[in-house]
Amino acid sequence: MPKVAVFMGSKSDEAVVRPCVELLREWGVDSFFTITSAHRTPERTERLLRELEEQGCQVYICAAGLAAHLAGAVAARTLRPVIGIPLVSGSLGGLDALLSTLMMPAGFPVATVAPDKTGARNAAWLAAQILALRDPSLAGRLAAARASLAGEVEKNAAGLEGTSA
Amino acid sequence: MPKVAVFMGSKSDEAVVRPCVELLREWGVDSFFTITSAHRTPERTERLLRELEEQGCQVYICAAGLAAHLAGAVAARTLRPVIGIPLVSGSLGGLDALLSTLMMPAGFPVATVAPDKTGARNAAWLAAQILALRDPSLAGRLAAARASLAGEVEKNAAGLEGTSA
Amino acid sequence: MPKVAVFMGSKSDEAVVRPCVELLREWGVDSFFTITSAHRTPERTERLLRELEEQGCQVYICAAGLAAHLAGAVAARTLRPVIGIPLVSGSLGGLDALLSTLMMPAGFPVATVAPDKTGARNAAWLAAQILALRDPSLAGRLAAARASLAGEVEKNAAGLEGTSA
Amino acid sequence: MPKVAVFMGSKSDEAVVRPCVELLREWGVDSFFTITSAHRTPERTERLLRELEEQGCQVYICAAGLAAHLAGAVAARTLRPVIGIPLVSGSLGGLDALLSTLMMPAGFPVATVAPDKTGARNAAWLAAQILALRDPSLAGRLAAARASLAGEVEKNAAGLEGTSA
Amino acid sequence: MPKVAVFMGSKSDEAVVRPCVELLREWGVDSFFTITSAHRTPERTERLLRELEEQGCQVYICAAGLAAHLAGAVAARTLRPVIGIPLVSGSLGGLDALLSTLMMPAGFPVATVAPDKTGARNAAWLAAQILALRDPSLAGRLAAARASLAGEVEKNAAGLEGTSA
Amino acid sequence: MPKVAVFMGSKSDEAVVRPCVELLREWGVDSFFTITSAHRTPERTERLLRELEEQGCQVYICAAGLAAHLAGAVAARTLRPVIGIPLVSGSLGGLDALLSTLMMPAGFPVATVAPDKTGARNAAWLAAQILALRDPSLAGRLAAARASLAGEVEKNAAGLEGTSA
Amino acid sequence: MPKVAVFMGSKSDEAVVRPCVELLREWGVDSFFTITSAHRTPERTERLLRELEEQGCQVYICAAGLAAHLAGAVAARTLRPVIGIPLVSGSLGGLDALLSTLMMPAGFPVATVAPDKTGARNAAWLAAQILALRDPSLAGRLAAARASLAGEVEKNAAGLEGTSA
Amino acid sequence: MPKVAVFMGSKSDEAVVRPCVELLREWGVDSFFTITSAHRTPERTERLLRELEEQGCQVYICAAGLAAHLAGAVAARTLRPVIGIPLVSGSLGGLDALLSTLMMPAGFPVATVAPDKTGARNAAWLAAQILALRDPSLAGRLAAARASLAGEVEKNAAGLEGTSA
Repeated sequence: MPKVAVFMGSKSDEAVVRPCVELLREWGVDSFFTITSAHRTPERTERLLRELEEQGCQVYICAAGLAAHLAGAVAARTLRPVIGIPLVSGSLGGLDALLSTLMMPAGFPVATVAPDKTGARNAAWLAAQILALRDPSLAGRLAAARASLAGEVEKNAAGLEGTSA
Repeated sequence: MPKVAVFMGSKSDEAVVRPCVELLREWGVDSFFTITSAHRTPERTERLLRELEEQGCQVYICAAGLAAHLAGAVAARTLRPVIGIPLVSGSLGGLDALLSTLMMPAGFPVATVAPDKTGARNAAWLAAQILALRDPSLAGRLAAARASLAGEVEKNAAGLEGTSA
Repeated sequence: MPKVAVFMGSKSDEAVVRPCVELLREWGVDSFFTITSAHRTPERTERLLRELEEQGCQVYICAAGLAAHLAGAVAARTLRPVIGIPLVSGSLGGLDALLSTLMMPAGFPVATVAPDKTGARNAAWLAAQILALRDPSLAGRLAAARASLAGEVEKNAAGLEGTSA
Repeated sequence: MPKVAVFMGSKSDEAVVRPCVELLREWGVDSFFTITSAHRTPERTERLLRELEEQGCQVYICAAGLAAHLAGAVAARTLRPVIGIPLVSGSLGGLDALLSTLMMPAGFPVATVAPDKTGARNAAWLAAQILALRDPSLAGRLAAARASLAGEVEKNAAGLEGTSA
Repeated sequence: MPKVAVFMGSKSDEAVVRPCVELLREWGVDSFFTITSAHRTPERTERLLRELEEQGCQVYICAAGLAAHLAGAVAARTLRPVIGIPLVSGSLGGLDALLSTLMMPAGFPVATVAPDKTGARNAAWLAAQILALRDPSLAGRLAAARASLAGEVEKNAAGLEGTSA
Repeated sequence: MPKVAVFMGSKSDEAVVRPCVELLREWGVDSFFTITSAHRTPERTERLLRELEEQGCQVYICAAGLAAHLAGAVAARTLRPVIGIPLVSGSLGGLDALLSTLMMPAGFPVATVAPDKTGARNAAWLAAQILALRDPSLAGRLAAARASLAGEVEKNAAGLEGTSA
Repeated sequence: MPKVAVFMGSKSDEAVVRPCVELLREWGVDSFFTITSAHRTPERTERLLRELEEQGCQVYICAAGLAAHLAGAVAARTLRPVIGIPLVSGSLGGLDALLSTLMMPAGFPVATVAPDKTGARNAAWLAAQILALRDPSLAGRLAAARASLAGEVEKNAAGLEGTSA
Repeated sequence: MPKVAVFMGSKSDEAVVRPCVELLREWGVDSFFTITSAHRTPERTERLLRELEEQGCQVYICAAGLAAHLAGAVAARTLRPVIGIPLVSGSLGGLDALLSTLMMPAGFPVATVAPDKTGARNAAWLAAQILALRDPSLAGRLAAARASLAGEVEKNAAGLEGTSA
C-alpha cells in the first residue's frame, strides 16, 4: 500500500526523478512510481489518483517540465499534500516549469521544491518529513541522514583544512 | 449555437476579458462567455467542454492568471483550436501566466496571445480569423476593422503633422 | 499546544501574512504567530524553535522578503515540514525572496508557495492538509472549504451567463 | 495548392523547423515550405504572401529568431491565421524571439507556440486543428495521433511500473 | 527638408517621444515627426520612407512598444542609420520592446537606446551627433548642451555640499 | 577630514541616498556627501577622488541608477574599498543598475549592496564595519545599533503575540 | 587616418569582435583596432580617445562584457557617435553587459547592438552606414552587401523549395 | 592568526573558490579556508565564527550557491565585514545565489561580488583592500597587481595593433 505516489510527465524525466524514488526506498517508504501526463493522459491521471486515494496514499509528488500542469491537476483533485518538482527542459532554465508549478491559486497549494535533481531529492525529504510526523522510526532515519550530510561536510573540511594557510 | 467559447478562471478577470467578448459580439460571432477554473471546478470545465463540443463550438478562448492551467486543461480534452490569454496577477508581470499558457508539450498547442487587454482583443481577432476562413461575410467585417485601425493612425498623424517641424 | 507555528520576519509583513493565520484559526488549527528574524534575532529564532519542538509543533510556516533566509534557517534546525512564503518587497517583484526560499540544498526542503497573500493562504492550506492526514474532522473542514470555492465559481458564472450571447 | 505555408527566416533554422513540415506531410496537409526574411527579403515575403493568398492558402506558420519580426510582418499583411514559432538563438534563451513574436498589438494576433522543436510540432498541430474544423478526415488523423501520444505514456509506464516499489 | 524623421507607432506614445522632437528642434535640426505603424499601416510606413529618402533624410528614429517591429521594418528598407526607442507598455517593463528593437540580425542594425523618455532624449542626441560629424555649428550646440549638463551637476552639488558633514 | 565619501550620480537620488548619510552622521563617522557623475562630470569625479585620497578618505560609497558606472569609475582609480548602491530608475526594477554595479572584472571589486534605501542603509553599515576594525568606539555604536534592531523585533513580537492563538 | 576606432576590453574578446573589424576592412573603411579597458587602463582609454579625436576619427565602437562600462566611458568623453557591443561572459547570458551598455543617461547615448558576433557585424554596419551618409562609394558597397544577403536567402530557398510539398 | 576566513558551502565549490584563496596567499594575507554550510552544519558555522572572532579575524568571505544563505548567516553573527560570492549552480544562471546573497535587510550588509571565479578573485581583492587600509606593504602589493593588470592590456594591445588597419 503506497504512502507516496511519484508521478512524472514523461519517460524522458526518469533520470532526474530517480533520486527521489531511491531516497524513499532507502528510507523504507512504500511508494508508487509511474508516468502520467496532465495533457496526454488526463484520464489516466484521474484514475490513478482515485485508486491511490482509495489505497490510502498520503502524499503525491509530481515532476513535470515546460507548462508543468501535472502537480496542479493533481492538487485540484485531492486534499492530500502535493509536492511539485519543476523540471528543466528547453531554453528558459526551468523558469517555465517553476512558475507553472509554484503559482497556484488559493486553496490548491503545490509544495514546490527546487528544479531537477536537487528538488527530486528534496521532494523525497519533504514527503518523508510529513510521514515522519507519525512514524518515529522514519523520523530516526531522517535524523541519521541529516547527521550524515553534516558529517560529510566535516570530513571534507578536514581534508581541506590541511591545505589551508 | 456558440461558435466560440470564452472561459475565464475567476470573476475578477472580467474587466480584462470583456473586450474579447465585445469584439466577438460586434462582429456577430455567436459566443458563450463563462467562468470556470482548472483547479476550483475541474469537473465543471470538463462538462462545459463536452456540452460545447456537442453543440459544435469551434474555438475555445481561455483566460487565466498565475499558474494558468485553464487553456492547457481544455487543450488536453479537445481537438479544436484553443487560444490562451495570460492574465497579469501578482508581482511577476504576468510571466507566470505567460509561460504556463505558452509552454505546452507537443500535441497540445495553446495559441498564446499577449497578456491582458491587448491579448483579450487579439484572442477575439484570432478566433474570428479562424472562423472567417469559411465565412466571407465575417472576413469582410475583419477587413473593415483592419481598415479602421489604419485609418485611425492616419487621422492621428494628420492631427500631429501640423505640429511637426 | 500549537500544531502550526507562523513566523514572519518583520512587523511590516503582518497584513500580508494575516490571511494565513486567519484561515488556520477558522479551521480550528492551534497555531502560534510571532515575529522573528533570521538575521536580526537568530538566537530568538533558535530558542522559539526549541520550545515549539518540545511542545510538539508539527509544521512551521515562515514568511520573509528580500534575501529570505528565515524558512531555510528553520529548515536547517528541524525535521518537521517547513513551508516558506516569499514576500514581495522592493523592486524585483519578489523574485529575490522566491529564489531565496525555494532553492534549498538537498536534505533541507522548504515547501514553497506563491508570494504574498495567495501564498499566505496556501501555506495555511498546505499545513492543514498535512495535519488533516490524521485528523478526519479537519479534512472535512477542508473539503467544505474546497466546495465553497467551487460554489463561488458557479455562483459568479450564473450571474455572468445571463449577460453572455 | 498549399493550405499551409511554413516560412523560416534562415537556412540555419531548417533542422528546428523540419518537424513541423514533417507532421503536416504525415497528415497529408498540402503545405509550402520556404525561406524568407522580414529584414533581408521583405519584398520576397510580400510577394510570396500575395501568391499564396491567391492560391487560397489558409494558415501561415512563421519561424524566426532574435528580434523575430517575420510572423508580425506576415500578420500585418493577411487576415488568415498566423502562427509564430520563436527560435532560440544567441544567449538569451529565446526570450527575444518569444516576446518579439508574442507581444503583437491589437488587431494583428500571432498565435504563438513554445520555442524551437516543441513549438515547431505544435505549430503543425495548431494549423491542422484549424483546417480540421472543416476536414473530418484530418480530424480523424489528429485524434489518432493524440491516441498514440497517450498510448506511448501508458506503454512507458508499463515498462516502468514493474520496477517501482 | 527634414534631416531626421521621428516615427512613433501610436498616438498614445506622444508624451514619451516628445522630448526627442523638442531637443532636435532646440538644436535647429530639421525633423519630421509622425505616427506610422509597422503592423497597422505597413504601406504608409514604406511610402513615408520612400518620400523621406528622396528628400535626403539622413537618420530615422523609430519609437514603438510591445513587439516593437517599427525600427526593424524601417531598417530593412533603408541604408541610412536607424535609431530605435523601445517604449514601455504592459507588464513586462519594456523588455519586450527592448529585445524586439535591439536583437536585429546581421546587416540590419538598429542603434538602440534606453526605453522611454531617457531613450527619447538620447535618440535625439545620437541623431544630432551623427549629423554633427559634418555640421560644426551643430557640434558646438551639442558641446554647449553637454557643458550645461555638467554645470547642473556642479550647481546641485554646491547646494548639497553646504549640508554635508 | 572625511573617512567616508558618499557620491551620488544625480540630485534626484538624494531622498534614496539620504539614509546612508544620516546613519554615518548618527554614528559620528566623518563623511563627505556630494553629487558627481561618471558620465556628466568625469573630470569632477576624478578630481574629487584625488582630493579625498590625499585627505585620507578610507571608503567610497557610490550610488547610481541605469547603466550605473559611477562605482566602477571610482574603483578603477582607487585601491580603497568602494561600495556600490544600485538605484532603481525606469522600468527594469533596478536590474540594470544592479548588474552594472556588481559585475566588475577581476581586480576592481565593487562591494555591492541591495538597491535603494535598504542598500543605502547597508552601505553605511558596511563602511562603518570597515572603519570599526580599528575604531572600538565605533564598533560599540554598531553593536548597540544591532541590539536595537533585535529589540525592535522582540517589542513588535510582544505586541503581536497577545493577539495570536 | 582611422575613421572608425574599435576598442575591446580584453584580449579574450578578439574572436567575437573580429567580424566587426573584418567587415570594415572589406568595405575599405580605415579603422583602428585595439584593446583598452575602462577599469584596467582608464588613462590609456582617455589618451587613445584624445589621439583619435585629433586624427579625425568619426565613430567609436566599444565591445565589453560583464559590467560593460567601456562604451559609456568613451561616450562621456566624446561627442562623436559611440556604438556598444555587449559581450556575453559568465552565466547571465550577457544581460549584464547588455544593460550596462544600453541604459545610458540622457546626453550620453551608446548606440547599442545585439550581443556578440551578430552585434559585432552590426556595429560595423552601423558605423559604415553613418560614414556612408557622405561617402556614396561606401553606400554602394553597403547596398551590394545587402543585395548579397537577400540573394543568399533566395538561393537557399531555391535549394529548399525543391524538397517542399 | 588568520585575518581573512574563506568559507564555502560545499566541497564541490572548491575549484571556483580556489582563486580567492590563492590571491590572498600570493599577497601574504593570513587566511583560513574551510567548508561549512548554513544548512548542513549551522552549529559548525557558529563555532568557527566564534573561534575566528576570538583570534581577531577581520574579514569573512562566504561562497555558496542556490539559496545561498551562508554569507547572511555569518553576517547575522558578526560585526566584521562579510563578503559574499554567489556561486552558479543549476539552471538559473546563479541568479538565485546572487539575490540570496545580495538582498540583505538593513543592518546586515553582505558585500556582494560577481558570481563564480571573477567574484572569487574580487572577494580576495576586496578583503585585501580593507586590510590594506592599515597595511601599507599590502597596499603596495595591490598597487603592483593593478599595474600588472594594466600592463597586460598594453602588452596584448601591442601584439594586436600590428594586425590592425
